[in-house]
Amino acid sequence: MRPSSSGSEPGLFGPVLARGGAADEVTDGAWLSALLEVEAALAAAAADIGIVDRQSAEAVASACADATTYDAGAIGAAAAATGTPVLALADAIRAAVPESARGAVHVGATSQDVLDTAMMLVVRRAAVPVVADLAGAADAAAGLAAEHRNTVMAGRTLGQQAVPVTFGLVCAQWMTGLDGSADRLATVARALPLQYGGAAGTRAAADRRGSELAARLAERLDLRDPVLPWHTIRLPVADLAGALGTACGIVAKVAGDVVLLAQTEVAELSDADPARGGSSAMAHKANPVAAVSARACARRGPGLVATLLGAMEQEHQRAAGAWHSEWRTLTDLLVATGSAAAWLHDCLEHLVVHADRMAGNLTADLRDVGPGDAAALTDLALREHDSHVRPR
Amino acid sequence: MRPSSSGSEPGLFGPVLARGGAADEVTDGAWLSALLEVEAALAAAAADIGIVDRQSAEAVASACADATTYDAGAIGAAAAATGTPVLALADAIRAAVPESARGAVHVGATSQDVLDTAMMLVVRRAAVPVVADLAGAADAAAGLAAEHRNTVMAGRTLGQQAVPVTFGLVCAQWMTGLDGSADRLATVARALPLQYGGAAGTRAAADRRGSELAARLAERLDLRDPVLPWHTIRLPVADLAGALGTACGIVAKVAGDVVLLAQTEVAELSDADPARGGSSAMAHKANPVAAVSARACARRGPGLVATLLGAMEQEHQRAAGAWHSEWRTLTDLLVATGSAAAWLHDCLEHLVVHADRMAGNLTADLRDVGPGDAAALTDLALREHDSHVRPR
Amino acid sequence: MRPSSSGSEPGLFGPVLARGGAADEVTDGAWLSALLEVEAALAAAAADIGIVDRQSAEAVASACADATTYDAGAIGAAAAATGTPVLALADAIRAAVPESARGAVHVGATSQDVLDTAMMLVVRRAAVPVVADLAGAADAAAGLAAEHRNTVMAGRTLGQQAVPVTFGLVCAQWMTGLDGSADRLATVARALPLQYGGAAGTRAAADRRGSELAARLAERLDLRDPVLPWHTIRLPVADLAGALGTACGIVAKVAGDVVLLAQTEVAELSDADPARGGSSAMAHKANPVAAVSARACARRGPGLVATLLGAMEQEHQRAAGAWHSEWRTLTDLLVATGSAAAWLHDCLEHLVVHADRMAGNLTADLRDVGPGDAAALTDLALREHDSHVRPR
Amino acid sequence: MRPSSSGSEPGLFGPVLARGGAADEVTDGAWLSALLEVEAALAAAAADIGIVDRQSAEAVASACADATTYDAGAIGAAAAATGTPVLALADAIRAAVPESARGAVHVGATSQDVLDTAMMLVVRRAAVPVVADLAGAADAAAGLAAEHRNTVMAGRTLGQQAVPVTFGLVCAQWMTGLDGSADRLATVARALPLQYGGAAGTRAAADRRGSELAARLAERLDLRDPVLPWHTIRLPVADLAGALGTACGIVAKVAGDVVLLAQTEVAELSDADPARGGSSAMAHKANPVAAVSARACARRGPGLVATLLGAMEQEHQRAAGAWHSEWRTLTDLLVATGSAAAWLHDCLEHLVVHADRMAGNLTADLRDVGPGDAAALTDLALREHDSHVRPR
Repeated sequence: MRPSSSGSEPGLFGPVLARGGAADEVTDGAWLSALLEVEAALAAAAADIGIVDRQSAEAVASACADATTYDAGAIGAAAAATGTPVLALADAIRAAVPESARGAVHVGATSQDVLDTAMMLVVRRAAVPVVADLAGAADAAAGLAAEHRNTVMAGRTLGQQAVPVTFGLVCAQWMTGLDGSADRLATVARALPLQYGGAAGTRAAADRRGSELAARLAERLDLRDPVLPWHTIRLPVADLAGALGTACGIVAKVAGDVVLLAQTEVAELSDADPARGGSSAMAHKANPVAAVSARACARRGPGLVATLLGAMEQEHQRAAGAWHSEWRTLTDLLVATGSAAAWLHDCLEHLVVHADRMAGNLTADLRDVGPGDAAALTDLALREHDSHVRPR
Repeated sequence: MRPSSSGSEPGLFGPVLARGGAADEVTDGAWLSALLEVEAALAAAAADIGIVDRQSAEAVASACADATTYDAGAIGAAAAATGTPVLALADAIRAAVPESARGAVHVGATSQDVLDTAMMLVVRRAAVPVVADLAGAADAAAGLAAEHRNTVMAGRTLGQQAVPVTFGLVCAQWMTGLDGSADRLATVARALPLQYGGAAGTRAAADRRGSELAARLAERLDLRDPVLPWHTIRLPVADLAGALGTACGIVAKVAGDVVLLAQTEVAELSDADPARGGSSAMAHKANPVAAVSARACARRGPGLVATLLGAMEQEHQRAAGAWHSEWRTLTDLLVATGSAAAWLHDCLEHLVVHADRMAGNLTADLRDVGPGDAAALTDLALREHDSHVRPR
Repeated sequence: MRPSSSGSEPGLFGPVLARGGAADEVTDGAWLSALLEVEAALAAAAADIGIVDRQSAEAVASACADATTYDAGAIGAAAAATGTPVLALADAIRAAVPESARGAVHVGATSQDVLDTAMMLVVRRAAVPVVADLAGAADAAAGLAAEHRNTVMAGRTLGQQAVPVTFGLVCAQWMTGLDGSADRLATVARALPLQYGGAAGTRAAADRRGSELAARLAERLDLRDPVLPWHTIRLPVADLAGALGTACGIVAKVAGDVVLLAQTEVAELSDADPARGGSSAMAHKANPVAAVSARACARRGPGLVATLLGAMEQEHQRAAGAWHSEWRTLTDLLVATGSAAAWLHDCLEHLVVHADRMAGNLTADLRDVGPGDAAALTDLALREHDSHVRPR
Repeated sequence: MRPSSSGSEPGLFGPVLARGGAADEVTDGAWLSALLEVEAALAAAAADIGIVDRQSAEAVASACADATTYDAGAIGAAAAATGTPVLALADAIRAAVPESARGAVHVGATSQDVLDTAMMLVVRRAAVPVVADLAGAADAAAGLAAEHRNTVMAGRTLGQQAVPVTFGLVCAQWMTGLDGSADRLATVARALPLQYGGAAGTRAAADRRGSELAARLAERLDLRDPVLPWHTIRLPVADLAGALGTACGIVAKVAGDVVLLAQTEVAELSDADPARGGSSAMAHKANPVAAVSARACARRGPGLVATLLGAMEQEHQRAAGAWHSEWRTLTDLLVATGSAAAWLHDCLEHLVVHADRMAGNLTADLRDVGPGDAAALTDLALREHDSHVRPR
């Protein structure tokens, strides 16, 4: 699986805090493309059911083909007058098509329909590298588990050596957590729904053809066609929040273990990448930069999740603020989770395991104790991992 | 469906903030019973695979049969020395069985095994009334949706009248949110896993029979037998957090709408229960107490979820604090969610709908506009609700 | 300074999660006493300005003298009808005074006035042991700083040994954090305001004498008399949230360091209390239970703070839910912070410092490097600590 | 007071979600300038106490004068190897000065010293427009309070009309909240401390002149010189989090009231700016866009505060992730708070008050009731506001 971790948001902090492929998928350009894609598909779906003519729909599609022909800054500036960029964008599309095709733009839709649906597209794309990095990290953990099936190390509880475990079992547990969080996110991402309700959810502006139109639109965008519009019933956002927050938690657990096992006094793990780990004041140090950065990104998860869950209280047929508060919070959460996953993926692929040190660190009273069923448990878990088909 | 809302935590604030059946399931007594149930099942499972004799297992079962024979206060006080109540409880059980049966107590287990597994039992029981109240609220919403299929009212976006909707469609949307959150919670609750790993997850103290023992124990407790122990891979807690936080969000949305629609100037809804709604300073007021209380409880969700997600970063084989931080946070979240759901269930069952006022409130420019596909959408959603089988 | 840590909430989890004196100050009994105290002071203040007769005020005072004469359960049950326990309590007081004195009960007040003001009293009392334990922990840290002024140990950055520091400086930094958080909380606690506004903040039911009455009431309760009622301007709650959350953060930092320094492989600190630290599965372990428990409690802070800050959005003249969501959240935060502080206080008072191990752990390249200005900085900080007068 | 609200972050969402002057102060360019400013001041302070020569210090100052001569992207990319951009920046400065001046770069400092101190400069600058917009909003509220001293309207509790208040008193209460939050933020912002500790807080690399150097550096940067370095004692960050979260809460309260009072059925307020409020589907609507946007931004506060408080648990002498998690969280919180304040400032300056509607909305049983001491309370509060000197 291709690590997405080569990419990252540019700038002073992006390479640390916005590593991985998600950042690229939530830029203004990505949003603008998604908004245009929804408008184009909406016109095409309207043509499919015969409420606009095909030629007009094609004119709209053509006007929506290239996001770079629109001025995101001007559209954003206009958004300050209405609260969303969609109205100005629809106007710009109308200005870009022949007069005869203007009626084919934004058919029966309200701004929230286009923005929510575009958000689903943005999220689905941004989730791909996040899932890939979680799965890649799981694969790397699986590799370590197999390799260290019999590498005995101290099991530690409350920071104290307790009884022996194997590093293989530790990695297998990391793997199950990473697989589990990748699955949860992939499951949510593949079931993202269309939003199409018109001004207040009744599809009133679609001539009693709204549900047909919605079905065609969902099919064209490969989104789920939900029973009802969900403009203020935010289950899809809550599901994303839960899955992303869970992924952050698992990444933080694994990265935290790496940091602890890399401590000078423990020294059972270290980061192999020679390009990393220097310090401005201490040349001799080899910092576990990848694990530290993974943790830094993952720590942003719970607060962002809380904001999204708090934003579920959305008034009537469109919320007066809570809806708007989702946009940046959700993309920040995607970027933070993706960055955490990308760092951890990289970390686990470059991890150096000091098995001798693992053996040597065992306190005297642990040396004659065996690691129980660690190897058998590891085998079981690896078998499950290998046979696993990721939801997609 | 029986409303659980008759019960509630006693005391000065319990009837407002801890309504519903969940509070009863997370008391010290409930925890103690669950801990004892795990210890009894563990001895029985050990007998099943032949590593302790059946008579001893029965002695343990007998000693664990009645939680009131143990002094929760004394066990809790002893917990201050170890960080958990399990060690003292296991000692108390040992003291309660014949000397010959002492070896059958706490077989191959560590405190966390017993506490985590008991937590799953506690959660599963506490989730029952929460799901029931969410589902009951959904049923009540369905009833309202059917009754008000054609009751036209103003759709409101950003607080402004936008285009007409029907109250039926509004209720149908509430219903889909409530059904969705009940399903999510029920799905998580039925898949809760056993935790059995011994001191550090290797099942070392179970004579290479640990996985057999785990399988029997899971079966006896009707819990899922996971591939690996999850002592520091907290996916089950994250899943609960997500499902409970989502339920809080949906309840807050519905209760918030009721509060808004009950405003003096809107007056489209009111609370029918004559026992409620008085004010100390204003005799003429009829406050929407049930919706207000539902909202109050639901608002606790996001912060508690954030704590649980933040607690996923658990060190090595047992966390030095994060694990302990889950206990009260998770039960508080169950109680808050359950109380929110119980209040909303009650609220929706007693809601008085002022259809005349809904019509009268429509501004002039909305009066000649129809509610689009509202009725057809309502029918679709009700059909789905009626055919729905709740996960269990 | 007397450690408050002897007390704790009883029950299965209280001794771990609700240690310290705060739990005792937020019980139903403590709330009921505070509510009665406000009602008594209100009658007395009304007599002070001559709007009720002194004899009636004394009858009210007498009826409010003993909280145990009221049935918290019955009052709480009645609260389910109105959303607060105050209405039922005022009725019960009226029933307990001669008919002639009934007009002296709840003069010009609304439920929120009494509840908010009582909350300030509850908080002020609960904050005393929290501040005491924070300050006690600071004193213990100061003692360690002085004793270990010249004890060299490894300074660690990102988990790696960096350059030498002294344990004295480490403790001095802990001390400044603990002093700072004790000061912040004490400063907020001594400036808690009266709430007295009547039904909607205009003091309309107090015959144009409301501001006089408020001044007398504030004086009698030793609360600040704010310029305006703050029923929905929740700065006092936000200030408490900030101070308590900050204290949790500092305790978590110090306790986290203790856990890390007590790790088997580091072993520079251990917990001296022989009553603590056992494990159900591992007799040889000496767990740092006090630091672990401190951390567990402190971790609850951020999520609870988020709930309180989120609850600041309170509608009009009384919030429809957000206000009610504060009650338990704020007392939970007090208990969690207090418990964290009590555990840390205890921990630092019993800490065993292994100076030999600190020296021995230094890696070769650190052995010839000095700890810079560590001793001088420690002296400076201790001087500041010693001359410090805690706000009260 | 000049509204800062003319500026805003560009792009598709910036004009809605990142309005006001704060966004400009937290760009990569602003960070880079601040980092360079710290490095220049550090060299100058070192010259002040004679440990580097003045000419070298001036060479450093000259190399640090223009941030545009550095490539933020390249420095950020290099940061991926160390976790912070400071090491690469120090190298770039060294490359930009004569060889003889290289020793004057980054004297005795560690990356965290420079980054934390630069963060204080960034925050202080970003706080200026935030305080200005909070204060501007308070002034606007004061103007409305004076104008509507006697404008009677319904006081509303739990969404129900309760007793009359005046719009003047409502605005006066808004004003006290806004003044209070502006004061809190200004107080914190003017007391921000220097961080200067060297690799592990001992100032070991500054030849026993570290404290002198720190004093001079603090003076040059006009920052507070704290008793001890605070690299892992994050009180300054906690103070900022508390003040910013409090400001978000107050803005949400006021904006929430505006949204409620602008509801179609209430219609007591509306937004005067003719450039705002349109809808893509409903031409007749006049949305309260400024209040809605203020609320959207303010809602991000609690979650971000929780992240910052959670990040206070920083290990030893430099945290392995928690520190890094602060950077973007803190600047996001500044931007969100600033944007909320800018929108609210704008909103209150353009608010249209429909006093006739306020009178007309009063229900029959409220019409003969007076607004108590509302006018007198308003006068008192305005007097306090007028005499108030903002901390600076």
